[in-house]
Formats: sequence, C-alpha cells, structure tokens
Amino acid sequence: MKKVICFGEVMLRLGTEGHYRFIQSDKMVVNYTGAEANVAVALAQFGLKTEVVTKLPDHDISRAAIATLKKFGAGVDHIVTGGDRIGVYYIEKGASQRASKVIYDRKNTSISNATRSDFDWDVIMKDADAFIFTGISAALGKELPAIIEDACLAAKKNNVMVFCDLNYRKNLWTPEEAQAVMKNLVKNVDVLIGNEEDTEKVLGVKAGQSDVTQANLDMNSYSTVADQLSKEYGFKYVATTLRKSISASDNKWSGLLYKNGKTYYSKEYDIHIVDRVGGGDSFASGLIYAILNGYDEQKAVEFAIAASCLKHSIELDFNLVSVAEITALMNGDGSGRVQR
Amino acid sequence: MKKVICFGEVMLRLGTEGHYRFIQSDKMVVNYTGAEANVAVALAQFGLKTEVVTKLPDHDISRAAIATLKKFGAGVDHIVTGGDRIGVYYIEKGASQRASKVIYDRKNTSISNATRSDFDWDVIMKDADAFIFTGISAALGKELPAIIEDACLAAKKNNVMVFCDLNYRKNLWTPEEAQAVMKNLVKNVDVLIGNEEDTEKVLGVKAGQSDVTQANLDMNSYSTVADQLSKEYGFKYVATTLRKSISASDNKWSGLLYKNGKTYYSKEYDIHIVDRVGGGDSFASGLIYAILNGYDEQKAVEFAIAASCLKHSIELDFNLVSVAEITALMNGDGSGRVQR
Amino acid sequence: MKKVICFGEVMLRLGTEGHYRFIQSDKMVVNYTGAEANVAVALAQFGLKTEVVTKLPDHDISRAAIATLKKFGAGVDHIVTGGDRIGVYYIEKGASQRASKVIYDRKNTSISNATRSDFDWDVIMKDADAFIFTGISAALGKELPAIIEDACLAAKKNNVMVFCDLNYRKNLWTPEEAQAVMKNLVKNVDVLIGNEEDTEKVLGVKAGQSDVTQANLDMNSYSTVADQLSKEYGFKYVATTLRKSISASDNKWSGLLYKNGKTYYSKEYDIHIVDRVGGGDSFASGLIYAILNGYDEQKAVEFAIAASCLKHSIELDFNLVSVAEITALMNGDGSGRVQR
Amino acid sequence: MKKVICFGEVMLRLGTEGHYRFIQSDKMVVNYTGAEANVAVALAQFGLKTEVVTKLPDHDISRAAIATLKKFGAGVDHIVTGGDRIGVYYIEKGASQRASKVIYDRKNTSISNATRSDFDWDVIMKDADAFIFTGISAALGKELPAIIEDACLAAKKNNVMVFCDLNYRKNLWTPEEAQAVMKNLVKNVDVLIGNEEDTEKVLGVKAGQSDVTQANLDMNSYSTVADQLSKEYGFKYVATTLRKSISASDNKWSGLLYKNGKTYYSKEYDIHIVDRVGGGDSFASGLIYAILNGYDEQKAVEFAIAASCLKHSIELDFNLVSVAEITALMNGDGSGRVQR
Amino acid sequence: MKKVICFGEVMLRLGTEGHYRFIQSDKMVVNYTGAEANVAVALAQFGLKTEVVTKLPDHDISRAAIATLKKFGAGVDHIVTGGDRIGVYYIEKGASQRASKVIYDRKNTSISNATRSDFDWDVIMKDADAFIFTGISAALGKELPAIIEDACLAAKKNNVMVFCDLNYRKNLWTPEEAQAVMKNLVKNVDVLIGNEEDTEKVLGVKAGQSDVTQANLDMNSYSTVADQLSKEYGFKYVATTLRKSISASDNKWSGLLYKNGKTYYSKEYDIHIVDRVGGGDSFASGLIYAILNGYDEQKAVEFAIAASCLKHSIELDFNLVSVAEITALMNGDGSGRVQR
Amino acid sequence: MKKVICFGEVMLRLGTEGHYRFIQSDKMVVNYTGAEANVAVALAQFGLKTEVVTKLPDHDISRAAIATLKKFGAGVDHIVTGGDRIGVYYIEKGASQRASKVIYDRKNTSISNATRSDFDWDVIMKDADAFIFTGISAALGKELPAIIEDACLAAKKNNVMVFCDLNYRKNLWTPEEAQAVMKNLVKNVDVLIGNEEDTEKVLGVKAGQSDVTQANLDMNSYSTVADQLSKEYGFKYVATTLRKSISASDNKWSGLLYKNGKTYYSKEYDIHIVDRVGGGDSFASGLIYAILNGYDEQKAVEFAIAASCLKHSIELDFNLVSVAEITALMNGDGSGRVQR
Repeated sequence: MKKVICFGEVMLRLGTEGHYRFIQSDKMVVNYTGAEANVAVALAQFGLKTEVVTKLPDHDISRAAIATLKKFGAGVDHIVTGGDRIGVYYIEKGASQRASKVIYDRKNTSISNATRSDFDWDVIMKDADAFIFTGISAALGKELPAIIEDACLAAKKNNVMVFCDLNYRKNLWTPEEAQAVMKNLVKNVDVLIGNEEDTEKVLGVKAGQSDVTQANLDMNSYSTVADQLSKEYGFKYVATTLRKSISASDNKWSGLLYKNGKTYYSKEYDIHIVDRVGGGDSFASGLIYAILNGYDEQKAVEFAIAASCLKHSIELDFNLVSVAEITALMNGDGSGRVQR
Repeated sequence: MKKVICFGEVMLRLGTEGHYRFIQSDKMVVNYTGAEANVAVALAQFGLKTEVVTKLPDHDISRAAIATLKKFGAGVDHIVTGGDRIGVYYIEKGASQRASKVIYDRKNTSISNATRSDFDWDVIMKDADAFIFTGISAALGKELPAIIEDACLAAKKNNVMVFCDLNYRKNLWTPEEAQAVMKNLVKNVDVLIGNEEDTEKVLGVKAGQSDVTQANLDMNSYSTVADQLSKEYGFKYVATTLRKSISASDNKWSGLLYKNGKTYYSKEYDIHIVDRVGGGDSFASGLIYAILNGYDEQKAVEFAIAASCLKHSIELDFNLVSVAEITALMNGDGSGRVQR
Repeated sequence: MKKVICFGEVMLRLGTEGHYRFIQSDKMVVNYTGAEANVAVALAQFGLKTEVVTKLPDHDISRAAIATLKKFGAGVDHIVTGGDRIGVYYIEKGASQRASKVIYDRKNTSISNATRSDFDWDVIMKDADAFIFTGISAALGKELPAIIEDACLAAKKNNVMVFCDLNYRKNLWTPEEAQAVMKNLVKNVDVLIGNEEDTEKVLGVKAGQSDVTQANLDMNSYSTVADQLSKEYGFKYVATTLRKSISASDNKWSGLLYKNGKTYYSKEYDIHIVDRVGGGDSFASGLIYAILNGYDEQKAVEFAIAASCLKHSIELDFNLVSVAEITALMNGDGSGRVQR
Repeated sequence: MKKVICFGEVMLRLGTEGHYRFIQSDKMVVNYTGAEANVAVALAQFGLKTEVVTKLPDHDISRAAIATLKKFGAGVDHIVTGGDRIGVYYIEKGASQRASKVIYDRKNTSISNATRSDFDWDVIMKDADAFIFTGISAALGKELPAIIEDACLAAKKNNVMVFCDLNYRKNLWTPEEAQAVMKNLVKNVDVLIGNEEDTEKVLGVKAGQSDVTQANLDMNSYSTVADQLSKEYGFKYVATTLRKSISASDNKWSGLLYKNGKTYYSKEYDIHIVDRVGGGDSFASGLIYAILNGYDEQKAVEFAIAASCLKHSIELDFNLVSVAEITALMNGDGSGRVQR
Repeated sequence: MKKVICFGEVMLRLGTEGHYRFIQSDKMVVNYTGAEANVAVALAQFGLKTEVVTKLPDHDISRAAIATLKKFGAGVDHIVTGGDRIGVYYIEKGASQRASKVIYDRKNTSISNATRSDFDWDVIMKDADAFIFTGISAALGKELPAIIEDACLAAKKNNVMVFCDLNYRKNLWTPEEAQAVMKNLVKNVDVLIGNEEDTEKVLGVKAGQSDVTQANLDMNSYSTVADQLSKEYGFKYVATTLRKSISASDNKWSGLLYKNGKTYYSKEYDIHIVDRVGGGDSFASGLIYAILNGYDEQKAVEFAIAASCLKHSIELDFNLVSVAEITALMNGDGSGRVQR
Repeated sequence: MKKVICFGEVMLRLGTEGHYRFIQSDKMVVNYTGAEANVAVALAQFGLKTEVVTKLPDHDISRAAIATLKKFGAGVDHIVTGGDRIGVYYIEKGASQRASKVIYDRKNTSISNATRSDFDWDVIMKDADAFIFTGISAALGKELPAIIEDACLAAKKNNVMVFCDLNYRKNLWTPEEAQAVMKNLVKNVDVLIGNEEDTEKVLGVKAGQSDVTQANLDMNSYSTVADQLSKEYGFKYVATTLRKSISASDNKWSGLLYKNGKTYYSKEYDIHIVDRVGGGDSFASGLIYAILNGYDEQKAVEFAIAASCLKHSIELDFNLVSVAEITALMNGDGSGRVQR
C-alpha cells in the first residue's frame, strides 16, 4: 500500500443549505476540509495510506476536524496540536448565472503560526511514496515556505515523489510575493499542477488568450507553458484541469498532462454541478494515484479527470468515490443508470 | 370505479438526503414502497380502487408501511400479517455522471416465506378488473411462483385482466432460474411489460444491438421482439419504456405499445430527473389505466409515457399525479408554468 | 438616497421543501412576501430607501412578517395594523415537465378590507421618488381601487413617478372587472409593466399569436402593443419580460423596454431555475432602480433583466442580489465561477 | 367492530419547530387536525371504525388533510367537498413558565359555511355506535347548531350514543351566545365532557373556587356540578379532566367520571409534556372506547386518563397509542423502560 | 419612546442542534449575538428605541448579522464598517449533569482593533436615555477602555444613565488586568450589575462563601458587597441575578436589587432550561426598562427576574418576550397554560 | 496506552427524530452501534486503544459503519468482511410515561453466521490488556459461543483480563438456552457485569424482590448475589448498575461494585434523559478504564457511574465524554454550568 504525505491547512467549512444565500441562512452545514486534506481523503478512498500533516488548536472543533479525517480514512498521526485557532471559510453555492461565494477567515490560525520545529520531516517521510503541498500552504504564514522546503528536502532524501498544486489565491498574496517564494520551492517538485492563471501569477509564465469568464480556453497555449516550465524547473510532469464555466450549474471539464515534450488531453465531460469545491484537489489525487500506480500518460490524465468529474456530483469538498467507479466512467459509462 | 389487484413486496426505502452518499449520511429519508405498491398508489391517484396484496410482519414498521399505503389511497384489506421481517433497500441518488446506488436487504422477509395458503385469491379477485404482478415477486421465494399462478388462475376465472412487468433483477435470480419460472407464468398474462434486457433474460428472446450504457436504443428491433412474444404467448399487448440515460440527471424517455402486429411509439421527453425510481411502475400504472378505460393504442402509450415522465419529477417511488396533470402534458403543455 | 413607496398585500408563503408535493409534506418553508414587498426588498438590496404600505392584523404572524421585511431592509413605518387575517399562499415547486402549483387563501384579509381612511398618502409620499402598485392590489377588495387612486394623486402632487405592474390574476377577477378598474387607474401611471396576457386581459389590447405554453413568443407584436398603449394612456415607458418556459426547470429569459416609439430588447439568458416566483417583481425593481438612476433605455432593460435573471437562482420570493452582482452579469460574466 | 361518527372542523396546524417562537421560524411543522378528528384518529388506533364528518374545499391542501386522516385510520367517506377554505391554526409550544400560543385563522371556512343539506345524517348514522361533537363545532357558523341537532336526532333514531365535549373557546363566542345554543343541543347528549370553565361558560353552572392559573383545583366542587347537570339534562355520564399546570413543561393530570350520583376519581399522573394539544380529545376518545366496551366507571376513567396521559408524550394532536400501551400504564407501568 | 445605546461586540454564534456534541454535528444553528446586542434586542421587544454600536468587517456574514439585528428591531445606524473579522463562538448545549460548552474565537476581530476615532459619541448619545456596556467589551482590545470612557463621558454630558454589567470572562483577562481597567471605568456608572464572582474578580470586593458549583448561594453576603461598592463608587443601583444550578436542565433563578442601603429580593423561579445563554443580558434589559419607566425597586427586580426567567425558555441568545408576557408572569401566572 | 478488544455485533441504528413515533416519521437518524462497539468508542474517548472485532458484509452501509467507528477512534483492523447483511434496529424514544421502543431485525446477519475460522484470536489478543464480550454476542448464532470461548482462551494465554456484560435479551434466547451457553463461558471471566434480571435469567441466581417497573430496587439483595456468583465462578469483580425508572424522561442512577466479599455503592444521580440507550455499555467502559488504571473499588464504581450518568445526556449510543468531564462530575460538579 502506497503512502502519501499531505501538508497544509485543515479548515472548518460552513456552508449554507441548498441554494440559500448567507443572509437567508439559519443553519450552516459543517465540514472539515483543506486542499491537501481533500487529497488525502480522496486517496484513502482509493485504498492508499495517507497522512495529513498540519497544526490545529487544542479544542473540540479541532477534535471534530481530526475525527472527520479519520472517518474518511486519512491518517492523523502527524497532526501537531497548538496555537489559537482553526481557519474557517463560509460558502454559499451559486446556481445558474449566480456565482458561488467564499469568505475566508484564516488569519492567525495555528498552521499560519507554525514553526519549523513543529514538524520532524524525516520521521514523517519515512516509508512514504509521495508528498503534496499547494501554493496555498506556502502563502499562509511567515515560516511556511521554510517548513515546506524542509519537507521537500526530506522527501528527496527519502525518495518520495513531490507534487505541487500551485493554487494561486489572490487574497493570500500578490503575484510578486508568490513568485518570490514559489520559484524557489518548485525546484524540488516532480509533478507540477496548475492552470494558466496559476502559472502566470505564481511562476510568471503567461499562456495564451483564454478568458476564464467566457468559458473558452486556449488549450494549445498551455502546452507551450508546460514545455517552458518543464525545461526551466525540470518537472517530470506538468498537468492542469481545463474548466469551461457555462454557469454555476453547468461546466465542461477536461484536463491535460504534459510529459517529455508531449501533451496528453483527456476526454471532456459535461457536468451538472452538485458541489464544485475540491474539483482541483480531486484531480491532483487522481493524478497521484495514477502516477504511483504506473499508469501511462493518457490513462493517467483520463483517470484524474474522471475522478474529478465525479467529484462535482458529490456534496462538500471530499471526493468520496472508489477506483471502480472512476474506472467505469473512464471506460465510458457516464449514463448514471441505477446500480442495484 | 375499476378495481386493480397488485401483488408483491412492500419494502422500507431508506434514502440519503439530497445528493449525499451513504457514508456522509446521518439521516435517511423513509418511504414504504414496492413495484406493485407503486402501481396501486399511482392508480389510486387516478381514482381507481386498488388492493395491495402482500405479507408483512407484525410490528410498528409494518404498521407504518400500511399507514403510508392508506394515506396514498391504496387498499390494504388483503395484507396478511406474519413472518419475521420487512424488506429494506438503501438508496443514494446519483447526479451527473455518478450513478444512483441501491443496496437490497430483502432476504428472509415475510413475503419471501409466504405460502399458498396465505392468500384466498377467489375472495381477493372478486369484483376486480385487473391484476398485476412483476418478475420481482416471482423471484422472491420458493412458493412465490405457485402463489402467483394461483392468483392468475383466479383472475382468469373472475374475468380479471392480467398484467405482468418482467422487471428482471440480477441479484434475485439468474436468467436460467427466471426462465424456468416465468415462461410458465406468463402464459396467463394479457399485457406484458418489459424492456429488451427483461425479455432476453426472462423469456430468452433477444432484441437488437442496443447498449443501455450509451443512451442509444435500437427501437425497431424491439418491435420484432414484441411480435415474436405475442405469437408465442398470446399477449394482447406488449409494451416497454425506452430510456436513454444521458446522465443520472438527464434522460430521454419514451415508450411503445405493440398490439396485433402494430407498434405505436410515444412522444419522447427530455427529463430533468428528481427521482427516477418507480419510473417503470408509473408506466405500468398509466398503461393499466389507459387500457381499462378503453383508450386507443396511441393514446394509451402517450398516457402511460406522460404519466411516467411526470414521475421523474417527483420525490420517492410513488407517482403522485392526477389524470388531469397527465392529460395536460399529453396535450402538449410541458412548459412547467406556474399553476395558480 | 432615492425613496420608493410600495403598496400592496404582504402574505405568508408556505412552500413545500425541495421538490415535495403538498401531500408529501410534513414541513413547510415560511416566508413573508407580496409583489410590492418583493420590489421593496430588492430595492433595499440596491441601497434605496423603501416603504412597504399595507394593512396587517395585530398578531405574532404579522409581527413576524414585519420583522422579515425589516431584516431585508424594507421600511415598515407606514404599515397599518387592524383587521382579521394575513393572506396565505401555499406553493409546491415544479420540476421538469411538472408545473409549480400555487394555492391562494387571501380572501377577507386585513388589506382586502382596508378603507381609504387607513392611509394618509400625503404623509407617505413626502420625499418619495417613485411609487409602485400592481393590478393584484387593485383586485383585492372593494375600496382598493379608490385607495390606489388616492395614492396616485398624492404621488402626482409630490412629483413621485408612478409605476404599475399589471399582473393579471384570473382567480382574483375577470377581464371585464379588471378593465373596469384598471383603465381608469393607469391614467396616472408613468411606467407600465405587463406582458401580453396582462395587456390583453387588463387593458383590452391584444398582441400577436404567442402561445405561452409553447415557449415561443412573438416579440415584435408586443412592440405594437406598447406603442398603442403609450399613445392611449401617455405612458413614459412600457416594459415587459419575455419568458420562454422550456420546462419548470429551464427557462429562457429576456425583456424589452419601449420608449417614445422605440423598443429596446435585452440579451436573453438560459436559466436553470431555483425559484421563479418573484421573477416579474425583480424585473420591476431593476427597472425602477435603472430609471431613477437615469440609465439609458438599453442599459435600463439590460439591468432589469440581469437582476431578474439572478432572481431565478435564489430561493423564495425576494431578489437578494447587489447592484455589483447585477452589473457583473450585465457586463458578461454569467460563468458562475466561485467568488473567493 | 364498533363505529363512531365524529363531526367537526378539520384544520391545518402549522407549528414552529422545537421551542422556537413564531418570529424565529423559517419552517413550520404541518399537521391536519381538529377536536373531533383527533377523537377519530385515537379510536382508530384502538381498532374502532370511525368516520370524520366535515366539509373541506376542493384543493390539494384539503386532499393532504384527507390523506392524513386515512393514514391514521380514520374514515373519510362522509367528508363533503365545497366552499373556499380550510381553517388554519398556528402554534408555538411553550416551555417552563412560557405558555404555548395558538393563533386561529378559521373564519369563512368551508365547514363554517356548511348547510343542513350538506349532510345526510340517516345515511351517516347507519350502523354507528357513538356520535361525538364538541362545543367548538356548534360555534363555527350560523347553520352549525341546526346541523348538529339534525345529527343528534338521527343518532337517537339509530340508537347511537351521543357524546359532547363542551370545549368552550372564548374567541369563537361569548358565554351568552354559547348558552343560547348549547343548552338546547345538550338535551340530546348521553355523555357530557367539560371542565369547570366549560360548564360555567357554556351551561351556566359554576363550580367552586379553583384558579386554573395556580395549579390548584377544587375537585369536590366539580362533583356537585356534575350532579346538578345530570339532573337538569339527564346525562348518563358527566366527565372531566383535571389539569394542574405546574408549568408549560410539567403538569399533573387526572380525571373524574360521574354516574348516578357517584363520582369516580382516577389516579393522578406527573407529566413531562411533549405536546399537550389534543389532551382533552384523547380523554374523550378513551372514554368513548371504555363506555362502548362496557368498562365499569372506575376502569373507564382510569383508561381515559391513562390514554390522555400518554397523549402528552406524543408530538402533534393525534393520540397515537394502542390499547395495550394504555392498559400497561393503567396497570402501573409508567416507568418508561425500553420495550425491546 | 426611550432610547438606549448598547456598545459591544456582535458575534456569530454557531450552535450544535438539539443535544448534539460538537463531534457529532454536521450542521450548526446560526445566530448573531453579543451581550449588549442581546440587551438591545430585548429592549426592542419592549418597544424601546435602541442602537447597537460596534464595528464589523465588510462582508456578507456581517451583513447577515446586521440584518438579524434589524429583524429583531435593534438600531444599526451607528455600526462602523472596517477591520478583518467578526468574532465567532461555538456552543453545544448541556443537559442533566453535562455542562454546556462554549469555545470562543474572538481575537483580532474588527471591534477588538477599533480605535477611539471610530465612534462619534456626541452624535450617538444625542436623545439617548441610557447607555450600557459590559466588562467583556472593555477586555476585548487595547483601545477599548478608552473608547468606553469616551462613551461614558459623552453619556454624562447628555444626561444619559450609564449601566454596566461586569461580566467577568477569565479567558479574556486576569483579575489584575480587569481591575486595572474597570475600577476606573465604573466611576461613570449609575447602575452596576454583577454577581459575586464578577465583583470579586473585577472590582476586588469579595462576598461570602457561596460555591457556584453546588447550587447554594449566600444571599445575604451579597447585600454587604453591594453596600460597600455603592459607597465606594457612588452607584445608584447595584443588582445581580442569583442562579442556583441544579443541573444543565434545571435551575433556580432569582435576583436582587440594592438601592440606598436597602436590598430588594425577587421571587425565585424553578426553571426548565431551553437555552440559558443570554440569561444575564435579559436581566440587564429588564432592569433598564424598569428603571427608565420609573418602577419602584421591588417591582423593578421582579420585572427583571421575570423577564430573564422567560429568556431561559427561548432558543438562542435573544429574549424575545413582550412586556405583557413578563407582567403576566410577575403577576403570578407561570402555569404555562395555552394562550389561544 | 492500554488496549481493549471488543467483540460483538455492529448494527445500523435507525431512530425517529425527537419524540416522533415510528408511524409519524418521514426521516430516521442513522448511527452505527452495538454493545461492544459502544464500549470501544467510549474507551477511545478516554485515550485507550481499542479494536472492534466483528463481521460485516461487503457493501456501502458496512463501510459507513466502519467509517463511523474510525471517526470516534475505535480500531477496525480486525473486522472481517463477508456474509449477507448488517443487523438493524429501529428505535423511537419514549417520554414521560411512554416507553422507548426498539424493534430488532438482526437475524441472518454476517456476524450471526460467523465461524470460528473467521477470527485469529492469538493475533487479535496480542498486546491487549482487556477483552470484553456480552451475552448478546453469545446469543446471536450457532457458532458464536465457540468463537467467544476461543477468544477467552486466547485472552487467558495472553494475560488479557476478561470482562463480560451478561445483557440478557429475551428476544434472542430463553433463560434455559442462555444458561446452557453462558454458565460455561463465564468460567473464563474476570469481571462480571449484570443486573438482577441478568443474573437470574443467564446464570440462574435470583436476587431479592425488586420490581423494575416500580423504580424500587432491593440493593442489598444484589450484594448476596454477587457474593454467591463470585464464589461459584471465581470472578474478581462483580458489578451492576442500579436504575430506578421514574419515567422515560427521568431516572435515578447508581451502581455497585463487589470485590472480595465487600460491596461498594456509588453516589446516586437524578438524571434527565436525552438518550438512555448505551447506558449499560458506558458503565462497562468506565469500569474497564478504572480497573485497567488501578483505581480503588470505591473510585472505580464512582467513575463508572459518573461516566454512564453523563451518557444519558448524550444523543445516540456512544458515550462521547472525556475523562476530565467524568472526573469533574465524580468530584461533585454536576451543576451543568456553562464551560467557557
């Protein structure tokens, strides 16, 4: 059983019910989530061993967060206790032309104030096969880039493959700040995941003329970006999802995987959205699974996209699907017929 | 007022809320249902008199099942009390490319252990106009085929029209087992309902090359099947629904009715699915109503398909629509404008 | 800050949850609403000052209604207390081919028995910029036309622009009764809103051959109607929404605004419906906002249609969107991408 | 199987969830109820045949009301369709020192406008064993006293025992109005149920010095009242419940039954209240059951009080308990131990 | 109409449903609250004019908080927008021997970082009759004591009566820190509210030997404390509630009011608790109302205690009761009988 | 960290919401539970390592059961997959005089058909400190007694302390059947838990004259029973809870522990019940914890009773309390004051 280390923030997600707006809501749906935790949970459904590495305060809300991770099979043995607060995000889901809205309250959290001494990476990376972090984690606090660099070096030392999802968040840092940190960190990365906006803002490499608000994407230009990045940083793989947002209810969804000068495009799915949060994370987890299991490039990107296609049909951030369900979809059965 | 006898299992349906998967669910929605009970309830909405004939254990869950049938107008005068358990099925509804999932727990139920002496068919069939059973009921237990045969013979004696919906369920029996039982039982049947998979598995008559996972159906080939079956078994009518599964959220839905060498095709509807369970049962009830009321073949299949089209917009298994609503749809108003 | 006076009934809305039919419902969702109250609430979201003018009985349900209006920013200073009851309407939302259903219980309400002496319009209209009433209010009770005429005259005296949404309701009055009242009342109206059915039934002016049950609308013919009405009654603007009902789940939505012999058509939106009740009211509020803010005709109709397009994505009757959200949609971003 | 006819209003009950006040409520719990319907449903649980006789409008809310009665076993064969509206009452449940609050909206209902020609009492009373009406029904509308008198006379003719629960409601009529009607109607009554307030307001016979707001009741004085009433009107039985309201959460509950100059007092129960609405109706149903089954006086009052004691532990108005459960409580097991 | 200014934090309250613990909760009930906001809302129910003065960030959660205050009648005209976050507290309600649990996340909120220049107290205090702050507000941030002192001085200047509820919170500051601030601030206070723990920790004056964990309180000793405090700081009134915690479900509740050397004790109530949060705030609001309306001391303390007794029967923090309901309880009707 | 092995059935619990009866319920609350799983979960809250040993079918409901155990910290490494079904029990919670009702559907489950070869007890017992089974498990199926004997022998071999809770269930076996099995099995038991009914039915030793339906227990007689059992079977400890059922809402709760001829009685608690299911299991877990941690007898029984006292305040079967909370209650703070 392969083992994957996932480092990043675990947050409390508070979402309005159904299609209610914040102002209409007398109840909120509770979940505990985070980009890397989402990866860990998805991989646990695929049968892999995972560890979520983070720092959380010592109170019952954190304990509920940890219990939730355990419920869905993610490892929690290396979660550090300390600090003051758990991050929170509020979400109301959009519909039709109305966009979903996310409000973050993640400053001064335990993880943002974590220090290098909180984590013993040599212990954590032992027996691991892959490590993933995202650009979000690097942006959370002053010592975070150093913590991640420690992790990457320990990964290298232990022959652990390093995945990075750029995940640019404009409310966490500016492109300048991001580039100052990330251009250094990605030097240790084997597999880079990031869409056009990410690579432009985080690594300073601009793709073509896509306009994300218009559901039209310039697919070929991304290929050039991947090639350029690969050459500059030595990535083994570069990958991205390609989302065409028709509306908050309907998207077209595909992806591509670049390796050694060649780009592999997946099938495109018409998705009726239940919950799109975590879509990117489910792609990352599909890719990790596929690469760790030696899938060829075409099959790898098909698996990752099929996995993340299914994510959109599932409530909350976790991608709770099995390898069998993903494989069935890859093999062409997206008919949604009742499985008895 | 016409009277229809519906023999089969009544189960407890436990469904997750909204689009939640089983593992996410802290609550389940409760309903009491069953293929033939669904027919009875639908017919009760149309103003017919019905009797659900089944066997249920003597406890409060069964009493709740019976109360539910009564609420929706189905007759419960011939429900036998005894045995150990009520069948249960668990369901999570799919969405987009993710299929709905049903888990059955229906072994050793009261109905599966029923015996011929439990039912006095001459009393039950008195004053009845139609009788319906499905292939599911025949598969439930050892004595069930004999019970159904008793019922059919009593029906014949009382001039009651016999309807059978083949409803093949692979987790109940193999094609061989099904054919061993059903080829005999259908000899008493006037109106046969069954899709291509049903007729192949249950009666051994294979239609063309349709692939149900690909939303493409070979409509003409079914006509040949119907013709062949009619000649072999003397059915007055053969009917089927034609479902093209685009996804778990969207289907195309139509049907056909064969009589005397001629096949009548209904209009096709684009359906946005609320709950597709019971879709076939709602077609059967529409057909029973139409035939008992002397509708011509084209009108009969249009009525049955419009009825079952509306079923897909209704939560849970029962088709809670009126004849007026179905007629409005048949006549062309599927616009969904608010009725004030 | 502009101020708008909204006169009409405030009702209790009792809606089934999700897609449940009335007979399936053990709970109902509560809201307090009304055509003109909906306008007031929408305008309050846009930052305008509003007053809902109505009459309500002296009990806790009314107090909850008033509290709800206050929550969403509408003014309640001129609500009169007295009479016996608050109107109620029951609603089940349709889906796919199944129409939504509304049952009214609004006879003998406090507002329907209101008298001219209940309202001191010179006080109410002071400092106001616009006044809106609908044909519904005029139909509610014997003294209502006189009350509305009082209001219009006070509006004129105070330089308040008068808006009227014809809103014909066949269960409140016949075309003959409506025309007897409304032909007189609209003489005081500056901006008339009403679709083809409204203008035919309420003002006796018939447009072309559109069939609302078939999702095809004769757009040009409406232009002629607007022209004719404008000439006859001296309206400054005539406007209408154009709804093409594909199904209860999907509509196409656009609108037009007529002024001085010229007709301005808006963009058309493909809408996935969450709740379509209040769609017309949200158009009216968008139009009031646009006209009070001096938007040109094309921009005004685009704003009103974008506002009401978004309404369809929001639960219950109120259009809880901001000017910024509407403007973003007008400017082309209907992609529904997550706003973080 | 004994058969009981129950005449009166069937209403929609809209209750806030848990302990929420009206102003806090975004949802309401729906039930369909009424004093006499409550009696019918309770008797159906005891295995008796019942008919609810009332008049309801022709719409889906009424149909849901009728479906609810059917679900719980009450007969609906003599419900008349017509008129405009179903009565509504809103309820928030109290707790501790805070009282429950009920708001009625029951004017101009179908039943209040019913006429003598709506009911064919000779048909309705055929094969019946008991008839019950309450003072509420007599107060609802102009023709109601005559309708009830018709019913009583038909009952007498058919040897049907007549029960009357005085149920004085101050918002329906004054004591003078009540006495003008009820002193005549009770001449046909065999079994009179009514507490001290009822007998004083409705029949003008005042008991002792009890103060219902102080949880102290003068039990002996009621005996004198019962004796006086019996002599004046010839009642075979006079009965009442004795409620000591400690708080909205805790009551003491007992009852008495007077016959032939002798008064039988029941055991007193300390009740932790779940829902006290329908408490009196459950006593009436217990009494009807006990008398129709020939219980002696002491056993009859114990049965009726045990039945209504259990009612207080059940949500909503119906008393959903079995004879076995009541008998167990009468026999001394009120320990609430789990029944496995 | 009297007007009361209420200064302090407005928070998001996230509570588990029913009796669930945090770890069991997939949903949380949302409310917006705060000690002084609770006072404002309670006073609004009594018909007073109020203003909640606070600082909140510019996002939809804050807007929902403000909308909630408006719904319940509190004034929001002086709420300042700015800063990063709204405070949050998580609550699970206890039962029986299990205590309720509150987790605060209120550091770095907008109000805690407020500065003196945020509030123009001369404008705010204009036409006001009373001002209330609590010890919580003084503890929230560095500049808060100065802000409160500004407010008190403006109050004095405008003849506004100053109320202070000491409300010691051990997780906000130590007794030393509290005394350093509060001994100065209370010099401007007319009416001091605080229990024995508060006066000891905040003002350094220790009462007798009560042990709050044992439900026994030394009532007389408090009298001496009040006398001593009055003499030292010149308070016109000193008041406190007296809570005897039998369990999380049952409390005994009374209060006392000291004035001019004399102590007035209220009646004691046995309370069955629905939600005890906000109990102290409801006492403060009762006291403010009573004193502003010139009630004598005995009536004042009875009113305040009856008001806060009723609060315990109401869900969430606000005391949503009317003066009429409180008066009825004061006058002896705590029987909880249904009000129809 | 001590490790405890818990062998027995894991079931799906389906409970009605609030105080609803089965017939009223359109939703059920889902939990996964079982006597020994409850012990494991409780011990996990105390910080112990546990393993739930059972057999479950291979489907999503079982996977949800396992996920739930993981969430609450119980070990699942030795759960065997196979067989057909998971047991189900339905529960409606009583209130006041109305008893809670449990309906079991646990025949033919995977665990009931388990065989000796399913479990490798030498592996399971490695490094364990305690083992617990209950009489329920022994009653479930033919091979279960042998499986348990295997477990006990392996426990002995590995120096694992054996706990047995007799837990007689009359719907699983007769006293004769129970004695035939259990008299043999308890020979391996170190600590016996069982109330008077259990010891009489399962071991044939009758205590005094207590009547469980009357809330009066003969405490001394149990001492004699314990002494007798200890001598006969060599138990190191004998323990029982003492429940006085006042009603379904209120109980008195205490316990006793016998060792070496001496009986230690705990304090008695007045409990307001939230959910009493799992009360006995929480006592067993408290006792295991106390004994494994070397508590003296008095402290052990106080701990176990305080733990199980708190259980009654918690929804569903698991006792989700910490050692700190139990210790606080043991030390006298049952006041339920808010913990901030």
